[in-house]
Amino acid sequence: MAQFADRLIQQILARDSRSIVGLDPRVDQMPAFVRGYGEYAAITAFHELVIEAVADLVPAVKPQLAFFEQYGVVGMQAFENTVLAAKKRGLLVIADGKRNDISSTAEAYANAYLGPDVFNCDALTVTPYLGRDSLLPFVEACEKHGKGLFVVLKTSNPGSKDFEDQPLQTTGRPLYEKIGGVLNKLGESLVGDSGYSSIGAVIGATFPDEGRRLRALMPQALILVPGYGAQGGSAQAAAECFNDDGLGAIVNSSRGITYAFGDPDISREAFVRSVRENTLRMIGEVNAAVNPAGPRRPLQSPALPRV
Amino acid sequence: MAQFADRLIQQILARDSRSIVGLDPRVDQMPAFVRGYGEYAAITAFHELVIEAVADLVPAVKPQLAFFEQYGVVGMQAFENTVLAAKKRGLLVIADGKRNDISSTAEAYANAYLGPDVFNCDALTVTPYLGRDSLLPFVEACEKHGKGLFVVLKTSNPGSKDFEDQPLQTTGRPLYEKIGGVLNKLGESLVGDSGYSSIGAVIGATFPDEGRRLRALMPQALILVPGYGAQGGSAQAAAECFNDDGLGAIVNSSRGITYAFGDPDISREAFVRSVRENTLRMIGEVNAAVNPAGPRRPLQSPALPRV
Repeated sequence: MAQFADRLIQQILARDSRSIVGLDPRVDQMPAFVRGYGEYAAITAFHELVIEAVADLVPAVKPQLAFFEQYGVVGMQAFENTVLAAKKRGLLVIADGKRNDISSTAEAYANAYLGPDVFNCDALTVTPYLGRDSLLPFVEACEKHGKGLFVVLKTSNPGSKDFEDQPLQTTGRPLYEKIGGVLNKLGESLVGDSGYSSIGAVIGATFPDEGRRLRALMPQALILVPGYGAQGGSAQAAAECFNDDGLGAIVNSSRGITYAFGDPDISREAFVRSVRENTLRMIGEVNAAVNPAGPRRPLQSPALPRV
Repeated sequence: MAQFADRLIQQILARDSRSIVGLDPRVDQMPAFVRGYGEYAAITAFHELVIEAVADLVPAVKPQLAFFEQYGVVGMQAFENTVLAAKKRGLLVIADGKRNDISSTAEAYANAYLGPDVFNCDALTVTPYLGRDSLLPFVEACEKHGKGLFVVLKTSNPGSKDFEDQPLQTTGRPLYEKIGGVLNKLGESLVGDSGYSSIGAVIGATFPDEGRRLRALMPQALILVPGYGAQGGSAQAAAECFNDDGLGAIVNSSRGITYAFGDPDISREAFVRSVRENTLRMIGEVNAAVNPAGPRRPLQSPALPRV
């Protein structure tokens, strides 16, 4: 079975796009034409439109589970619909759930989001606090089903300094670097033909220095970079999470793509155009920052993995 | 509005019970008479029976979200049914989701589980890794809606040593103690008439020394103690998380209560009896360990809070 890392790199190269679109349902901010459907249908229809608008432009979408759960059971049904719509259009789905627990409970989360029988997403974000053994059931699910993980290392919020950045007594280095070292080892058995591992990391675009250090520490990890745009991270800062091959990271924007259309009475056509234009602008900005001298294509194109 | 802490203490005193029952749907391990209903109805019916069996014995139940999510959208519908059934029977509901994220995303999780409009649970478990500001939206929801939090500090798994236990350069003390100090401050504004705060902590029963230290460090925190029974924690170890007033903690058991009935072809009546007997045994063991010399009642009964 093809590794998640290889499938993602192939999608990135095929579209020359290192940007992904976050799907955060906020019904009260949706255009009036879709809000009128009621919550359940509005969330489904809104995301179908966004997915249609960006399917040829980005490698993946990142639905944020919290915003779906906020709408209760129908929100989870809309999540399922959204995952299916994205996969149907050839997009990878990274479920942003920041889940974790221990032993059989972690296994239940892995079954729910990475197994083939339930939501069947391509990757999941998880938190590391509970230790290496809490991550193992997720790693096993990735091995078994060709899926991926993005483990939260350094988030984009100011409070990420509180615990994530704490220097440890043993090394004098921040906690997130220790976790990064553990991830490197966990990811070794999941390195694909592309040279990247399916065990990746989350590093916020608001901390370029930390991004640069972690990039060097984890050369084979795929890095999911949130915090671009609405949260204040620039394309230049996000570019620190890329390798010299122009690969190794994906930059997410949510609100800046899907809720930046202005007029709530916008038409369906104008909404799709707005999403597409915002996405194209971001792709251009990220590509230019990753490869400031060159054209809009990878610096060194590795052979496409066989998938 | 009554504080969650006061409501929990009142329930504990009314039943003289410091034990709670974890609800982990594992359909393939349920008795045959309920498994035959199919997943959705089986999960709902199984928990209705468990709740009926223990409603007069324990202060609260703790549904584990991972096991519900594992059954997809119908699992979440069964979760909603389970929460309603527990509340109807006068039990508090602690949703074990170990959620967290930043800013508006944390707010969405708080709305989903602690707000009045969606799942409307009484308390939620959350992870602390992302920092103090990631916890604030949950604390605000607790203030607004009279709800509670249990922040994961020291889990019951062996891997909890990997990151949770890391000594920090600044203090030489473990990370979880630093987080405990932050929780103390966060909880100050949510201390109820009972003297306990609605911002509590999760500390595994498998680490009594750590439990004793954290108990001393956080005298006003309510401690949720997992790891009893199936995971190897004893009543004596769990007792370290209690204060001298015989209060301040609740000990959870899941499998040891609900899946310890033996024969899969057990009758409905015998199943209910098994759940009730397992619960009574645990209550007795925990009470005896908390108050080894005395009768099965609180050492010092504070005035019942007005709720």
